[in-house]
Amino acid sequence: MSDLFERHRPMLEAAVQALRTREFWTPFPEVPSGKIYGETARSDGEAAFAALWDAPFAIPGHPEETRLGREESPFGPALGITYPAASAETLIAASQAAAEGLAEAGIEARVGVCLEALVRLNRMSFLIGNATMHTTGQAFAMAFQAGGPHAQDRGLEAVAVAYGEMTRFAGSARWEKPQGKSAPIVLEKNWAVMPTGISLAIGCNTFPTWNSYSGILASLATGNPVIVKPHPSAILPLALTVRVLREVLAEAGLPADAVLLAVDQPGAEITKTLATDPAVRLIDYTGSSGFGDWLRANASQAQIFSEEAGVNTVTIAATDDFDGMCANLAFSLALYSGQMCTAPQNIYIPRGGIETDQGPKTFDKVAAGVASAIESLLSDPARAAGVCGAIANPATLDRVQAARATGRIIRNSAPMGEGRTASPLLLALEDGDETAEQECFGPIAFLIAVADANTGITRASGIARRKGAITAALYDTDEARITRAVRAFAQAGVNLSINLTGNIFVNQSAAFSDFHVTGANPAGNASLTDTAFVASRFRRVMWRRPAAA
Amino acid sequence: MSDLFERHRPMLEAAVQALRTREFWTPFPEVPSGKIYGETARSDGEAAFAALWDAPFAIPGHPEETRLGREESPFGPALGITYPAASAETLIAASQAAAEGLAEAGIEARVGVCLEALVRLNRMSFLIGNATMHTTGQAFAMAFQAGGPHAQDRGLEAVAVAYGEMTRFAGSARWEKPQGKSAPIVLEKNWAVMPTGISLAIGCNTFPTWNSYSGILASLATGNPVIVKPHPSAILPLALTVRVLREVLAEAGLPADAVLLAVDQPGAEITKTLATDPAVRLIDYTGSSGFGDWLRANASQAQIFSEEAGVNTVTIAATDDFDGMCANLAFSLALYSGQMCTAPQNIYIPRGGIETDQGPKTFDKVAAGVASAIESLLSDPARAAGVCGAIANPATLDRVQAARATGRIIRNSAPMGEGRTASPLLLALEDGDETAEQECFGPIAFLIAVADANTGITRASGIARRKGAITAALYDTDEARITRAVRAFAQAGVNLSINLTGNIFVNQSAAFSDFHVTGANPAGNASLTDTAFVASRFRRVMWRRPAAA
Repeated sequence: MSDLFERHRPMLEAAVQALRTREFWTPFPEVPSGKIYGETARSDGEAAFAALWDAPFAIPGHPEETRLGREESPFGPALGITYPAASAETLIAASQAAAEGLAEAGIEARVGVCLEALVRLNRMSFLIGNATMHTTGQAFAMAFQAGGPHAQDRGLEAVAVAYGEMTRFAGSARWEKPQGKSAPIVLEKNWAVMPTGISLAIGCNTFPTWNSYSGILASLATGNPVIVKPHPSAILPLALTVRVLREVLAEAGLPADAVLLAVDQPGAEITKTLATDPAVRLIDYTGSSGFGDWLRANASQAQIFSEEAGVNTVTIAATDDFDGMCANLAFSLALYSGQMCTAPQNIYIPRGGIETDQGPKTFDKVAAGVASAIESLLSDPARAAGVCGAIANPATLDRVQAARATGRIIRNSAPMGEGRTASPLLLALEDGDETAEQECFGPIAFLIAVADANTGITRASGIARRKGAITAALYDTDEARITRAVRAFAQAGVNLSINLTGNIFVNQSAAFSDFHVTGANPAGNASLTDTAFVASRFRRVMWRRPAAA
Repeated sequence: MSDLFERHRPMLEAAVQALRTREFWTPFPEVPSGKIYGETARSDGEAAFAALWDAPFAIPGHPEETRLGREESPFGPALGITYPAASAETLIAASQAAAEGLAEAGIEARVGVCLEALVRLNRMSFLIGNATMHTTGQAFAMAFQAGGPHAQDRGLEAVAVAYGEMTRFAGSARWEKPQGKSAPIVLEKNWAVMPTGISLAIGCNTFPTWNSYSGILASLATGNPVIVKPHPSAILPLALTVRVLREVLAEAGLPADAVLLAVDQPGAEITKTLATDPAVRLIDYTGSSGFGDWLRANASQAQIFSEEAGVNTVTIAATDDFDGMCANLAFSLALYSGQMCTAPQNIYIPRGGIETDQGPKTFDKVAAGVASAIESLLSDPARAAGVCGAIANPATLDRVQAARATGRIIRNSAPMGEGRTASPLLLALEDGDETAEQECFGPIAFLIAVADANTGITRASGIARRKGAITAALYDTDEARITRAVRAFAQAGVNLSINLTGNIFVNQSAAFSDFHVTGANPAGNASLTDTAFVASRFRRVMWRRPAAA
């Protein structure tokens, strides 16, 4: 059963090493190229995707009491795919029945299954990319990367952290305690890794695989059966994932029901029933803070690993590359129409303007620079569509509409061709405006006039501490102020990107290097992937006895 | 400031190594010998202890609004010691004021302080032993070991696990992402270890230092200021500890108020006020499940690390050393009059008897063998006092009295000389008797007649799963049945000791090797000391920027 483990051991060892050094590493190329994935990979992926439309999605052996599924592509059509569905009770029972087999399989067998499944998912990245595109609204290039290799990276990272932790201490020991002149006491000790219980992964609409793979794979590697509960609008990427995991489990002689899909309908969700079942001991959740609060209050039998809402910020204090800064921010704001948990929202700019390589710039000039960079980025419709994609949830368009009235419009939002789309809305606000005190999810950014750069840093770090934040960015040329800002943002528990220009963006969080979400502010308590994310998913239990003479 | 770290680095590295191998190791000798601790150590410790009686206990610079303290030795006299005391509000404010200095000190400065304090506490082991003896009722030899070197071991273990975790991943990295034919993207990344918040350590009456050092030192090493809340009957050992920690903090230039003592009076406890303060983010708790439930329901702002109640078991299936088994169990039952969280309570014996090296033994013969071994162990009054010590809490005597009526008395409990004492009460019960379904803390054990050995294993593992257990013991000669039992107890999440005879006991849990409490059953969610115990006491926060050319 550890054939798979041996096959993928070099990749695992490289991942463990990368985790330690935090240097760039990935086994899953992010470029959607036929040279890497095979000359026919693109068309094969498209064909495989087309074959899924308007048909029942098969998951062999999966509990099935009915079929559900009403996904609609944000680019237009209904997918017409139905999935096997069962009640929470049936799913819990199937999961429990699989638990012992998964636990008894041992570390290497489980880790081997996880690694093989990730490699197979990687080969399917074009199909996963299409499935991600038409459930989330991401443009294809991003859907390929975020839904495919980058999600696989996060999954592998979690497996590597889990493997490192499960094997951190000896599995057996000869314990020899001196007794002065008498013979020593000698015990044989052995430790078993015992899983915690059923694990529930609650997915989100915008990043169904990227945000869920860490929890799914950390739980599976540590021996906990997983029930995957996708967002009703983004089932397909996780259904494909579940199917692959079950295939590999079965091939390895492990119970396929160690991974189950929990499909439901809007208005008849089974999430709460699943989350409060006494057998569910681990919950990975990505979504609103409101439902996060509900889980904390009601699912107290489970450990909860969450990513929730926050207000990401940019503080513009000064720059020696004004054009580069504006272009970089334009991309960060436009990418997937601001529907990333890492997208900036509040941009603090001194009311009196800033120093730049082009001389002093007033607040309005800075605002105009960002707006103009967005215009330039989106001037070609094909490129605009490729950057912005479509809007996943119709409520986001309502939010854009409502936001228009809340500030001075610097740049208006507009539709952009195919599907449900909206380009970035930029609004100018005065410091203290309550509008900017909440997350306004979607292509909405506030340019906030503050007294000076220090005030901007105070506002940006303060809102991270109070409301949560996953990212913060700073543009500055004053090293002393940068040092103070580093400390302020660290104390607010938010990762800070300084002076990014060119092809690297505050939105981007790279597996094996960047811990995604720190766990140190209200934007979430889980960090992808630190040791705390895996260490309590299992326990060590010992048996000891006198050593044979 | 890292002088202390450098001074103690070899000890730290040896501890980290011992954690990995789980082999026997300690830098703190457990033998209360003048050859080790200095020829005058014993008399010096006694004199230092005598000097503390009937006087105010000084903690220089500690917040003091009043003086409190009414400890009484279980061996008789009132200690007459008062401690500086302050309201929860004052303590929280002082702790918050110390937080930034502790956080900014950095890993090595804090770890150095922890190591130096442990070494100083080790030198004070005779004083700590006396203080432990006269607050817990432990006989001196045990009070020295459990209150001194063994507690210091647990503290060092926690520091080593925390240090290992804080330094597990690189603190900085050069992240270089290839861009095909273009120049790579190169970022400098840095990570700060940011503490979680104020840590509250709620101590217990019976093992004030042993059960508290892990949490106190794990929090301090990871940068969280600690408020130490001793049990009102066992303040002195922790007051001595707090004083030493504060001394070393101050000498290292760190805020002494990073460690505070929270003394209160029975009937006017400040524990709930402290535990529910929004600034308190970590709680280490040893005590009843009832108060554990209260904390979980009311202190939801904090992570709770608990050791609570459980029902420890022995299953006697067979033995090839009947006398050795009985002698071993007699000691486990008598040691500190059953007031250890690891002491056995329910002893399952086949109704039809067992096979032994002395031929078959009926249930009553096995019971008589254990009772007789206790008589033999306690026949010499001085040795009896040295094993049993005194009863910490008068309620335990009431529990013994009430228990007498609940089963057939195999061996009666009796007082044994100086102080509040009670020798072990052994009662015979039938399988299914509800009496044995709860923890009966103190010198009370139930010999429970079950259908056969397998039923005993089922009952013992079952109660561990349902009610919690910290230890389980098994005596058996059938290797196939032992293998099945190993699995059953592992699935119940309880550490199992098999066929212990001689000078090693199920009650004993050795730092650096035995994980104390698994976290996998209701007896507690914290394991001393696994990675989960330290990993969420801090978070990593990054700042990144383009690398200088």
